[in-house]
Amino acid sequence: MKTLHVNLADRRYPIIVGQGILADAGKLLARRGLDTPPVVITNNKVLRLHGPVLLESLRRTLGGATVIRIGDGERYKNHSTLFKIYREMFRAHADRSSWILAFGGGVVGDIAGFAAATYMRGIRFAMAPTTLLAQVDSSIGGKVGINVAQGKNLIGAFYQPAAVLADTGSLATLPQRELTTGIYEAIKCGAIRSEPLLRFIEQQLPAILRCRPSEMEHIVVEAARIKAAVVAKDENEIGLRMILNYGHTVGHAFEAATNYRRFKHGEAVAWGMLAALAYGRQLGFLRETEAARLTRLIRRVGPLPSLKGISCSRLWNAMALDKKFNSGNIRMVFLPKLGAAEIRGSLDPCGLRRFLREFLSANGGSRHRSGRL
Amino acid sequence: MKTLHVNLADRRYPIIVGQGILADAGKLLARRGLDTPPVVITNNKVLRLHGPVLLESLRRTLGGATVIRIGDGERYKNHSTLFKIYREMFRAHADRSSWILAFGGGVVGDIAGFAAATYMRGIRFAMAPTTLLAQVDSSIGGKVGINVAQGKNLIGAFYQPAAVLADTGSLATLPQRELTTGIYEAIKCGAIRSEPLLRFIEQQLPAILRCRPSEMEHIVVEAARIKAAVVAKDENEIGLRMILNYGHTVGHAFEAATNYRRFKHGEAVAWGMLAALAYGRQLGFLRETEAARLTRLIRRVGPLPSLKGISCSRLWNAMALDKKFNSGNIRMVFLPKLGAAEIRGSLDPCGLRRFLREFLSANGGSRHRSGRL
Repeated sequence: MKTLHVNLADRRYPIIVGQGILADAGKLLARRGLDTPPVVITNNKVLRLHGPVLLESLRRTLGGATVIRIGDGERYKNHSTLFKIYREMFRAHADRSSWILAFGGGVVGDIAGFAAATYMRGIRFAMAPTTLLAQVDSSIGGKVGINVAQGKNLIGAFYQPAAVLADTGSLATLPQRELTTGIYEAIKCGAIRSEPLLRFIEQQLPAILRCRPSEMEHIVVEAARIKAAVVAKDENEIGLRMILNYGHTVGHAFEAATNYRRFKHGEAVAWGMLAALAYGRQLGFLRETEAARLTRLIRRVGPLPSLKGISCSRLWNAMALDKKFNSGNIRMVFLPKLGAAEIRGSLDPCGLRRFLREFLSANGGSRHRSGRL
Repeated sequence: MKTLHVNLADRRYPIIVGQGILADAGKLLARRGLDTPPVVITNNKVLRLHGPVLLESLRRTLGGATVIRIGDGERYKNHSTLFKIYREMFRAHADRSSWILAFGGGVVGDIAGFAAATYMRGIRFAMAPTTLLAQVDSSIGGKVGINVAQGKNLIGAFYQPAAVLADTGSLATLPQRELTTGIYEAIKCGAIRSEPLLRFIEQQLPAILRCRPSEMEHIVVEAARIKAAVVAKDENEIGLRMILNYGHTVGHAFEAATNYRRFKHGEAVAWGMLAALAYGRQLGFLRETEAARLTRLIRRVGPLPSLKGISCSRLWNAMALDKKFNSGNIRMVFLPKLGAAEIRGSLDPCGLRRFLREFLSANGGSRHRSGRL
């Protein structure tokens, strides 16, 4: 078991990583002052797989829990699920001294965190992420929210948990694509901040794909450490934190252009990193050999869903709607070398659009030149 | 024109008070970095009365504004108005660099502030409160939110504006009860922190009821100064800030027990202060002469809606649902002397309930002894 700390302006909180720690959740949380029965927000699948161990620990140490189940999947991260959570909390007489435990993947963490941020103007919450993506990425940094018709995560808040418990044991039950989507985010962390983490993933990829405990613990700890350090320096995403969006500007557009149906988030980020690598080469970032090395690693993780049928205009429109596409000043993250990132602003929209058309056409996307800049 | 500052942990912001300052809103806001066209959230009534002056100033200095109108009244402070605001903001292409100007009374400020707190995880906002209640109370302190079926302000956040512009000129157009509801909150500020403010209101009440500019500026500045000082010491309402709830524990219950239809907020608080004064007397707070002096001032402001038909059990149930009725530990604010407040916890529920029954019966409420403790 390892403990990292996220240091924020007014507070620090621990990320506890280890095999089987859900069995001690009650004790670990009580030590952080979370010593009353929580409102556990989760879904049926997580509850079936890992619920018994967690709930037994909460029962033993905290005297129980109220369980609120939500639908499984990104499409449930919406305002009707949010208000269902509120209603069940009122019914359970949750008050300002209550707290929420988000138990599941990124969807559960995002919506449960937003419920915590807004229920009675904010109550405490903790997270027990059960997917690799949530453990290395979404559970760290305090970004919480819901999707609306206009896009993903467009309503939300920055709201930090009191503790994160990442039980790497829960990763063994993940379907293959749920695992690889997390591996891509871990690769991203290495790409922007740690060449050693990249090297570790390169060397241990077969063990990681089999979820070997010590390897999983290592990548979760290292990726979480990187994200936590960046977030600590820029909690509200004014500057530095944007480097965490490496691969995301184009990645989000791939997700949106396919209505969030074709790609897992990490898969879209993987395509986004491949695009950023290629465009970065055009702009003079990263040597050919390093770009090839990262490309090779991304490709080794597993097959990515194809880009077939995605038109450049669709992709471009999706990018323009992204909230990171700041007021006409197009910014993207590039790698000057492996393990370092740089934010480049004022990108030429014509040049970027031309590149995207070439990238799509070189990677099986649509050659259709619909739309105009 | 006078400027106060609210000092928070990581930031300070100004409250600018003055007659006619809406005409300079653009310039005053631009100085605070709010120098792009805002999203103005308001209602038709405010827009008709004060919109032309404000919008002309925004047009001249900031190049314009997007106006979003919401319904006028507490019943519109709900989730469907909130999502209507989001939708109109998306339609206007508001992004993370946009900002909101809440232009109106407490309802506008609360819901516009909550929209600002949650749109794209939080954008900047400023407030131009146009009612006395909003100027002395709801625009200060960062409490934002909406009502839900289970109660008022139960979903929300603490989110601070970048600036508050209180134009005391806009008070002249208020209906009488909108004015007196604010005077009661100003009296509350004096009662808990400033005997001189109480004395000023006692001496100048006729001028205040006629909205004479210099008197209005004085009470807005003094009440705002008191609230700002308390909030600065306890932004998230963990301790001290509770003294601002003087008269509110019972006052909120009066509002809820009459479905928010009979009383203006300040009127309910006035009844709540009268109840707290009487109960405080029983518990040994405040000398008879001082209690009588404050009672007399409250009564002089104007007639209060009657308590007729409010049963003790209804009132008690409403109190039990209040989020300030913390986990069974009943706390209320009392005055050891005029201008000083004390939070008393662990109140005896039987004693309090008995007192409320007597208070209701002595003040025209129901004598019906329904329900049991």
